[in-house]
Amino acid sequence: MIHIDNFKSIIDRYEVIFFDSFGVVKNYKGLVAGIESTFNYLEKQKKEFYIVTNDASRSPEQLANGFKNMGLKTISANHIVSSGMLTKEYLDLKVNNGIVAYLGTENSAHYLESASLLTLPVSKIDNNNIDKVNALVFLDDEGFNWFEDLNKTVNILRKRTIPVIVANTDYAYPLSVNDVSISIGGIASMIEGIVGKEFIRFGKPDSQMFMFAYDLIREYRTINKKQIVMVGDTLHTDILGGNKFGLDTVLVLSGNTLTVDAETSIKTTGIVPTYICEKAVVELDEFGF
Amino acid sequence: MIHIDNFKSIIDRYEVIFFDSFGVVKNYKGLVAGIESTFNYLEKQKKEFYIVTNDASRSPEQLANGFKNMGLKTISANHIVSSGMLTKEYLDLKVNNGIVAYLGTENSAHYLESASLLTLPVSKIDNNNIDKVNALVFLDDEGFNWFEDLNKTVNILRKRTIPVIVANTDYAYPLSVNDVSISIGGIASMIEGIVGKEFIRFGKPDSQMFMFAYDLIREYRTINKKQIVMVGDTLHTDILGGNKFGLDTVLVLSGNTLTVDAETSIKTTGIVPTYICEKAVVELDEFGF
Amino acid sequence: MIHIDNFKSIIDRYEVIFFDSFGVVKNYKGLVAGIESTFNYLEKQKKEFYIVTNDASRSPEQLANGFKNMGLKTISANHIVSSGMLTKEYLDLKVNNGIVAYLGTENSAHYLESASLLTLPVSKIDNNNIDKVNALVFLDDEGFNWFEDLNKTVNILRKRTIPVIVANTDYAYPLSVNDVSISIGGIASMIEGIVGKEFIRFGKPDSQMFMFAYDLIREYRTINKKQIVMVGDTLHTDILGGNKFGLDTVLVLSGNTLTVDAETSIKTTGIVPTYICEKAVVELDEFGF
Amino acid sequence: MIHIDNFKSIIDRYEVIFFDSFGVVKNYKGLVAGIESTFNYLEKQKKEFYIVTNDASRSPEQLANGFKNMGLKTISANHIVSSGMLTKEYLDLKVNNGIVAYLGTENSAHYLESASLLTLPVSKIDNNNIDKVNALVFLDDEGFNWFEDLNKTVNILRKRTIPVIVANTDYAYPLSVNDVSISIGGIASMIEGIVGKEFIRFGKPDSQMFMFAYDLIREYRTINKKQIVMVGDTLHTDILGGNKFGLDTVLVLSGNTLTVDAETSIKTTGIVPTYICEKAVVELDEFGF
Repeated sequence: MIHIDNFKSIIDRYEVIFFDSFGVVKNYKGLVAGIESTFNYLEKQKKEFYIVTNDASRSPEQLANGFKNMGLKTISANHIVSSGMLTKEYLDLKVNNGIVAYLGTENSAHYLESASLLTLPVSKIDNNNIDKVNALVFLDDEGFNWFEDLNKTVNILRKRTIPVIVANTDYAYPLSVNDVSISIGGIASMIEGIVGKEFIRFGKPDSQMFMFAYDLIREYRTINKKQIVMVGDTLHTDILGGNKFGLDTVLVLSGNTLTVDAETSIKTTGIVPTYICEKAVVELDEFGF
Repeated sequence: MIHIDNFKSIIDRYEVIFFDSFGVVKNYKGLVAGIESTFNYLEKQKKEFYIVTNDASRSPEQLANGFKNMGLKTISANHIVSSGMLTKEYLDLKVNNGIVAYLGTENSAHYLESASLLTLPVSKIDNNNIDKVNALVFLDDEGFNWFEDLNKTVNILRKRTIPVIVANTDYAYPLSVNDVSISIGGIASMIEGIVGKEFIRFGKPDSQMFMFAYDLIREYRTINKKQIVMVGDTLHTDILGGNKFGLDTVLVLSGNTLTVDAETSIKTTGIVPTYICEKAVVELDEFGF
Repeated sequence: MIHIDNFKSIIDRYEVIFFDSFGVVKNYKGLVAGIESTFNYLEKQKKEFYIVTNDASRSPEQLANGFKNMGLKTISANHIVSSGMLTKEYLDLKVNNGIVAYLGTENSAHYLESASLLTLPVSKIDNNNIDKVNALVFLDDEGFNWFEDLNKTVNILRKRTIPVIVANTDYAYPLSVNDVSISIGGIASMIEGIVGKEFIRFGKPDSQMFMFAYDLIREYRTINKKQIVMVGDTLHTDILGGNKFGLDTVLVLSGNTLTVDAETSIKTTGIVPTYICEKAVVELDEFGF
Repeated sequence: MIHIDNFKSIIDRYEVIFFDSFGVVKNYKGLVAGIESTFNYLEKQKKEFYIVTNDASRSPEQLANGFKNMGLKTISANHIVSSGMLTKEYLDLKVNNGIVAYLGTENSAHYLESASLLTLPVSKIDNNNIDKVNALVFLDDEGFNWFEDLNKTVNILRKRTIPVIVANTDYAYPLSVNDVSISIGGIASMIEGIVGKEFIRFGKPDSQMFMFAYDLIREYRTINKKQIVMVGDTLHTDILGGNKFGLDTVLVLSGNTLTVDAETSIKTTGIVPTYICEKAVVELDEFGF
């Protein structure tokens, strides 16, 4: 039998909390019930926190706005570390000029632009501009015609030897209690298999996500890994990645991992969280403690 | 340096010839130049032959008609062994009734129907008939809406524990000298990765294709594997599969494998054809020998 | 809840029964309790049967002797179809002369020899005879020094472009109720990954195993696939392979698949047996029916 | 045609140089010819450098001693970042007590020990101490009996749900101009496939290696990624990893990547170095410039 820990008593022991977004803070219906009290408590206790998410479909500002519209006012853009931000850092450092072709919505690509880099959807690449395409990015499963633009992507990558960035490593995401949707990460793996080239992936469980957040903290205070805990609902991304980076980890049962499966999943995969909690909700007693 | 053999002198040594279709008999422009003389020669010499193809987009009759329209009259439907025919055999033996949902054109599915099995495109599956879906088949990359129907396929397979048949194992096929198209085999692998279930694949290099052709011959004459040679342009399907089944094999350089790459490809993959020829064309001298 | 079928009533409906060996007929302690009655019943009913096994560690004669020593007298060598026999057929058809290097015991290699083919353990290959090595076969995890001979195998395969045959596709096999042993199939996959070449694998779920048995039957009688049932304890080999070949299948719960896991395993893998039975044992009533 | 850059003019543009070890600084015969001049030049120019290596077979001190014995006196232990050091950091942060079982030599494990952590070779794990085993580490391909200890490792991992660390991601390493040796990374992948659990891998191309070095620099000076260049001989580890971390990269042709293959390899893999040089050697003119 698995041991269920009290979430409040865990976060009391750490200085900084990393939260996964989907399945921990929100789900397909809206906010996870009671999650506001967690962020209120963190604010009162002056604990730092970051949302560490494999979501490249929107900019940090837009993601923060999404939380605000659901009623979570504490989460601002500078609390967010997304795989899209790592993509932007990569492009800034490594692709000096030309066109970045992308699969996704305009929203997902807009914030990747810079003075010297133009973003263009794959649908707008043709014989006149293909020679200026210096990177290709998989951002979102929406915003393009799958049949036409995926076939076009394969042929662009056969003609251009350029870095390909996958800004979302998930294969599918939940749409409702019964249905899922194919993620751009799953689509990217198919294209990688077909063109036979090595794509660059940003997103948990990869350490670079955790390092990005860790570096953000160190800009304004000293910290060590022992003082940070990662909270997530998925063993293969949140827990595996957090563990590998050297963080303690909390598996919550409000998302991908069901209570009935938790023990078997941990044993089968060998991915062991430091703690297990029902959900990432701080339950205060009647006196607010 | 690789040794190039004379195609005519090879087929003179065998009783039955298996040909791959694309890259051997035809290509994206039409027939391989000179291929008619090969089939004329086979007819004159009373040699048996079969077209063994990973093409499930049409029935054997339609495939034969395609050759006829290009000017190859000798190839009739009963000379054709396709991965679609293995799919049909599987459905006849293993799926007794209900609906077979499919991804592909109507043409690709029509001949799979039987008295007790109804074929329906994935787009026509809904809550009223999903319980009658007893198999799902990947047939062709055309004839459906990729975004809508691939997402729907994932969700059907999460709800129904049914056999899934992939009738084309290729990941891409050539469209022109510069461009390729994603095959239904590549799409099926993506869906398999997402739903985590084991699909059933028909097509070279799998032995069942060769066995099907071998059984067709044995219905009317005795034969052994030493008397058959497989001719193909692709190491991973035609040559690997033919070798494994115990046949001698001919790699032709008129399709997927370029002359400059042949030696390296053989060494790198470890897939060794018995012979290598420029193309599968019998060149007769002025006296017809 | 899964439905458990009566084994006797199933085999009454078929003409020929294919049995997996380990986990069905025998296990690490000896014979599966009561299995003798099954073979007595088959003999009395004049039903044909074959043992279809991924065991290449010994010749069919030695395997039959093994059953005899445990008390099963009905199983003779010509009832056995092993992945080793497919290896022998491959060598006979495709490797005309020279040396077949092998990893395994002398017992596992001896019956692969022929007038024109010499078998030699990898340990005996050196600069004087390496040029005569025309095939390399993975037969058994015993009989060689892992450190020395696996490293030597990698280097032989870097120097020689020759067919490599893996005569056992399993990754591990049970040694006792608690312990397993690494199979030669797992070792072969490691070597394949290192040398980057494509190996040829014989063994379930590959159709060629079933075809070999099917052909044996057709040498002396007519049969069709509807009249054969495959009995096995492993979804990924026995059931997947049997289904794909077009046979009805029985999953027995006396080996790899535990009763508590059967339903989940079937749903997770999508590999559906036609029937499920506790074990492959015919239980007769007091009157022998 | 690929463009060959001058190595000296490249390093003149950066503040910090990361070097891969094998194939760049040394090879199986000793030091790469002329490499001393590079480290002399770096010292004279007061440039920082790190050796970033997937070698966990010895401690940083022992690795530095190795260079010293070959004549390279400038490389001290604090210039070395190895996958073994990341393993040590992981154990310090995440495994609080008990036994760390290992595969490798005593040398490879000794420096992983701490006040609260005992290292023991897999061969010394038995029923009396298995419950105290809290991690298992793959360190080196030597120092153990492959047959006995690999089988034992599989069975330990079936009984204990513990983190498994692979401190070397390579599959093979060169032994001489003709021969290679199987690496512990290749062995670990085989065991991972058999037990079906997710292992934790440290080593290039993983970003955590680069981050570790990057953090070492930032302890004593400010730096940004634009000021660092990674020099390596292997596209899949040095170049892919360096690129992904956001560094400029130099492919040298003195090791794994041959001059004749460089262009094809880059095109096939899609892994593009910023520069290509013959070797990592600074060639000064007669006046020392």
